[in-house]
Amino acid sequence: MRNILVVGAGKSTSYLIDYLLEKSISENLHVTIGDLYPEHISKNVSNHEYCTVIKLDVFDSIARQNAISNADIVISMLPARFHIKIAEDCLSLKKHLVTASYISSELKALDSQVKKAGLIFMNEIGLDPGIDHMSAMKVLDGIREKGGKVVLFESFTGGLVAPESDNNLWNYKFTWNPRNVVTAGQGGTAKFIQEGTYKYIPYHKLFRRTEFFEIKGYGKFEGYANRDSLKYREAYGLSDILTLYRGTMRRVGFSRAWNMFVQLGMTDDSFTIDNSKGMSYREFVNLFLPYSPTDTVELKLRLYLKIDQDDIMWEKLLELKLFDSNKKITLENATPAQILQEILEQSWTLNHDDKDMIVMYHKFGYELEGINRQIDSNMVVIGKNQSHTAMAKTVGLPVAIATLLILNKEITTPGVQIPLSKEVYEPILNELQKFGILFNEYEVPYLGYNPDSVAS
Amino acid sequence: MRNILVVGAGKSTSYLIDYLLEKSISENLHVTIGDLYPEHISKNVSNHEYCTVIKLDVFDSIARQNAISNADIVISMLPARFHIKIAEDCLSLKKHLVTASYISSELKALDSQVKKAGLIFMNEIGLDPGIDHMSAMKVLDGIREKGGKVVLFESFTGGLVAPESDNNLWNYKFTWNPRNVVTAGQGGTAKFIQEGTYKYIPYHKLFRRTEFFEIKGYGKFEGYANRDSLKYREAYGLSDILTLYRGTMRRVGFSRAWNMFVQLGMTDDSFTIDNSKGMSYREFVNLFLPYSPTDTVELKLRLYLKIDQDDIMWEKLLELKLFDSNKKITLENATPAQILQEILEQSWTLNHDDKDMIVMYHKFGYELEGINRQIDSNMVVIGKNQSHTAMAKTVGLPVAIATLLILNKEITTPGVQIPLSKEVYEPILNELQKFGILFNEYEVPYLGYNPDSVAS
Repeated sequence: MRNILVVGAGKSTSYLIDYLLEKSISENLHVTIGDLYPEHISKNVSNHEYCTVIKLDVFDSIARQNAISNADIVISMLPARFHIKIAEDCLSLKKHLVTASYISSELKALDSQVKKAGLIFMNEIGLDPGIDHMSAMKVLDGIREKGGKVVLFESFTGGLVAPESDNNLWNYKFTWNPRNVVTAGQGGTAKFIQEGTYKYIPYHKLFRRTEFFEIKGYGKFEGYANRDSLKYREAYGLSDILTLYRGTMRRVGFSRAWNMFVQLGMTDDSFTIDNSKGMSYREFVNLFLPYSPTDTVELKLRLYLKIDQDDIMWEKLLELKLFDSNKKITLENATPAQILQEILEQSWTLNHDDKDMIVMYHKFGYELEGINRQIDSNMVVIGKNQSHTAMAKTVGLPVAIATLLILNKEITTPGVQIPLSKEVYEPILNELQKFGILFNEYEVPYLGYNPDSVAS
Repeated sequence: MRNILVVGAGKSTSYLIDYLLEKSISENLHVTIGDLYPEHISKNVSNHEYCTVIKLDVFDSIARQNAISNADIVISMLPARFHIKIAEDCLSLKKHLVTASYISSELKALDSQVKKAGLIFMNEIGLDPGIDHMSAMKVLDGIREKGGKVVLFESFTGGLVAPESDNNLWNYKFTWNPRNVVTAGQGGTAKFIQEGTYKYIPYHKLFRRTEFFEIKGYGKFEGYANRDSLKYREAYGLSDILTLYRGTMRRVGFSRAWNMFVQLGMTDDSFTIDNSKGMSYREFVNLFLPYSPTDTVELKLRLYLKIDQDDIMWEKLLELKLFDSNKKITLENATPAQILQEILEQSWTLNHDDKDMIVMYHKFGYELEGINRQIDSNMVVIGKNQSHTAMAKTVGLPVAIATLLILNKEITTPGVQIPLSKEVYEPILNELQKFGILFNEYEVPYLGYNPDSVAS
């Protein structure tokens, strides 16, 4: 029996655990799930013959080391800041480690010791980061193998609501951490490179600088820039690329409407409002508008944001009951961002039968034999239900698959790493296909940045 | 002979030192000026019979303590962060201290020891903070003495260019620290209170939420909100005031045009641009605009900021040569804010004959015998020349006057303090009048927030 320890059994672990348990007999696996609240784990899982559920507090170092020492490989699905404790134990107890999180600098610092110990610490092997890395590297390596030179790479990912559950004016519901959605784009100017020129977008313009794209069968989407599109430039082997742009996907119109909150100051998370508890939604809106003895909150807001009479953006605000005097904020001393989140959660929470949807879109421009060419690639995954979401599937399956590949010595290169090598991405992408996680790739005419061939 | 030590003889000390030296015989004063660069001090000053200039490095604790021990009172005109070293020495050597800076929390912490020693550490006794405190407290105390209840206080100060030197489209030149102008309003959402309701303005809307006012003989001005208008609410005795708004003054149209830089992201001081040195002004502007193979930087900027063909804002940009390919940035790895400052300094630096102007405007609303009333109060000071600026006059004279009043035991209340008591502001404001620094006060009809009596 090979023992797999999964630390943290939150939202995103349903598919991950199902995958491993389904392979338990054929692959000779035993899965131990360590969680602070073992009672939350479904009976289907905890009663499984090859599964053990234990109560595990990650701050209890004896219990933690004990659990890790019994495992052959450890999967940490805890929030990223907790990984380092587990990683240090894995190093000293000589266990492999898999996480879906961004590599922290402290984790990166263990690299030479991890290599020396012949261990694999695989990170960023969820959806984004994860499937984005692997699917991009597959196409990029393919272009380079043909002798092509990559000149453009754009990549967008979105966690959205499935078309069949998409029934509000924002075409959006929270399918993941709402706080990350409310504060998205904050913390620094977005930076990317377009046709060889660096470009910068300040936060207050971010949601007005979107790009559009269409995905066959799913209609139009828009994308706004991530803070640092250049983060993986060297890792992807794109040091001299002319255009590199990474971003987040939404349905068309979301960003323009979201920008209203940004402009008002409602996404601000840097100060608290003393008297927030019991304040009405209407009063909250009025905090961000000039005083007037005569004009309504509605009129002041329309003027401030220049919203025309017939602009659908207005209906989007009404749908959220933003002008309602009877709807009250329940949070005490909350930041505007926290209050906005509370208001949005009233409208944007998935209903029992709602399904989520993951969309990923890559665009690759390259030069081959003197001709500019383009490959478009996209992936759409629709969730099954509230526990088996597309998010849990696309985050959890790559983690599970990588874990098994490491156990089976099909992934062998040691070190603290992310899934950029063929050894890693090829078997994982192949296995993901069996679960309907696959990319449609099209060779299309190169459009670059002059799609309409406008004369200069 | 009473010995006064002035530490730091920068831009703002010309009037301060002149005042003390002119009183040297009648008041029996000797002034010692300690500066890191004594050679920069004018011969008129250093050759004065009752003046000694010494080289003083504030980090040399022996030299510093030596200089302080020879003085009866110390004036620190150094940047605010250096005051604490001097204050600690003043405390142990039992010397009074005067500064024009905001009280830091470490300075505030010395209060009980300063009181116990019977010393006066007077701070915030320049222009803003300084004259603003004193002139406001005089009117506020007057209203309260009459039995009135203050319901509204608005206060604006601006360091501007004098009308006779006002010859650019921005109606603005740098008369003080340019960096503070470029980064003004950053570091947090502006907060104030209007008719009993808290109001918040995020940075990216700050320059579009200005108010206008007119000063007889000087035309119209506009004001944008300070970050924390409520800072002195309790100190001024205005705990239950309905409207409290403090801000910065500019000529009408400045803020709307400045907002273009804010919107573009050019005032951002949080990241550096690697290749800034040698970049043209035009290339700098293009960093903040979308790429286009066909459209000019001019057209892209007009569209992005929605600047009409005939909008004077456009001429303001042209005046700064912002689209010039031949004008080059000289700063290496600079932030956008640093680069913008370099560009603005090419256009907004005072010429040799230019004069500056200080404008202060207060509006007091109060209720007396059931009737709402209003007092408007304003001060305008024009500079004499480049060394004797209105800024140096309005910052330096209150410091010098306070110093003499403390020496003469006309100000006697000990402690770490700011000039809010009648004991302090009355003699200082009276003396300032002799130098043309005076307030015009008018009783006007109460306007409040419905100036046009619009029906609701």
